[in-house]
Amino acid sequence: MNDFSEIKALTFDVFGTVVDWRGSIIDEGEAWGKRMGIAIDWAAFADAWRGGYEPAMARVNGGQLPWTNIDGLHLMILGEIVDFFGIALDDKEREEWNRVWHRLRPWADSVAGIERMRRDFVVASLSNGNMALLVNMARHAGFAWDCVLSAELFRRYKTDRAVYEGAASLLGLQPEQVLMVAAHNHDLAGARRVGMRTAFVLRAEEYGPQQSEDLAAEAWVDLAVEDFAELADRLGC
Amino acid sequence: MNDFSEIKALTFDVFGTVVDWRGSIIDEGEAWGKRMGIAIDWAAFADAWRGGYEPAMARVNGGQLPWTNIDGLHLMILGEIVDFFGIALDDKEREEWNRVWHRLRPWADSVAGIERMRRDFVVASLSNGNMALLVNMARHAGFAWDCVLSAELFRRYKTDRAVYEGAASLLGLQPEQVLMVAAHNHDLAGARRVGMRTAFVLRAEEYGPQQSEDLAAEAWVDLAVEDFAELADRLGC
Repeated sequence: MNDFSEIKALTFDVFGTVVDWRGSIIDEGEAWGKRMGIAIDWAAFADAWRGGYEPAMARVNGGQLPWTNIDGLHLMILGEIVDFFGIALDDKEREEWNRVWHRLRPWADSVAGIERMRRDFVVASLSNGNMALLVNMARHAGFAWDCVLSAELFRRYKTDRAVYEGAASLLGLQPEQVLMVAAHNHDLAGARRVGMRTAFVLRAEEYGPQQSEDLAAEAWVDLAVEDFAELADRLGC
Repeated sequence: MNDFSEIKALTFDVFGTVVDWRGSIIDEGEAWGKRMGIAIDWAAFADAWRGGYEPAMARVNGGQLPWTNIDGLHLMILGEIVDFFGIALDDKEREEWNRVWHRLRPWADSVAGIERMRRDFVVASLSNGNMALLVNMARHAGFAWDCVLSAELFRRYKTDRAVYEGAASLLGLQPEQVLMVAAHNHDLAGARRVGMRTAFVLRAEEYGPQQSEDLAAEAWVDLAVEDFAELADRLGC
């Protein structure tokens, strides 16, 4: 069995792990489409928007694109996909649409789980989302973060080691005192590389009913759970 | 009359503005002295410890000292004053004493005032204290910060403009959309220099009964109040 007695803080990936970005965008899209009399495949729209995200971050980490925060990257990708989907949006409408990422809705177990784990551990976001996005989201959804940490603070995106090392340092902890919580094995691999402990949370429909990735934790993960309630249980909260 | 309709976020100085560092250190000192059978002037001890703080930060901002966070500076200053006061402390005891800054107690109006203002504004610390210190303090005292911001994120101490500009930027706001709240005119002057709005809160005994500075707001301050309850009133919360 794994021993978690050294752990002082939990850092949480956010998009997909804490909030349901895909379902939120589909719902907002459908409501907006109804008002505007526009019928498109909003699931495909959400997937296309999210699909531009990893390549854009890779360009920033690789130096092909100067530092741009997620609000900036989301807006850039939105500009590319609206043409594809045949949606006409002016600048103000684009800004407004881009803010959907600030009001994504939590998975059913997220708010209560974070609140519960907070009693025994420092709880912090550790997201590629920018600080303002994470602050607005936390206010909107009711996340009780002890502090909001973002890749923006280090001007590198996960899974660059600077993000995980920087987070542990700001928390005044050694990496092995921090448990990274994510629904994505590659994020946990990045955390593990710097010595953090890792917890995999299954979000089997993050990418929709046909999801094929991240349906199980890699063998080296310290803890694999079905949701935040089980994570709290396993951590003895 | 000043118009605050543009304001979206409030950033708070912490030491002296939100928490009573001097009273907290005196109380901890007296309790510790009693246990150890050591009688010293704990008010003088608190003042000496705090007295080393501005010069140490000036050395960091001036480049004479490499970046060192407040935990590091406090420990350095403690090392200098224990000899003067004739207290023998080993390394572990020094570390423990140094943590007193992580558990400073709030002024009577702080917790409720922050909670109340949070309903209408983003509320964040903007302190020279390091992130871990501010996180531990918020957990200990119950501050409902939307996010913890610290000079540590910018590796410069207030009143360097990088700290105020960096905070507004991380909040996704223009400086004029941010109200800096502090009990110290020089801090507010720093915020004003980058275009932030300013609120002075009177903490007439922060430096003890003989306090001679910061007993009134400078003429250019946007808002001067007696405590956080009045600040919330004046902001229409």
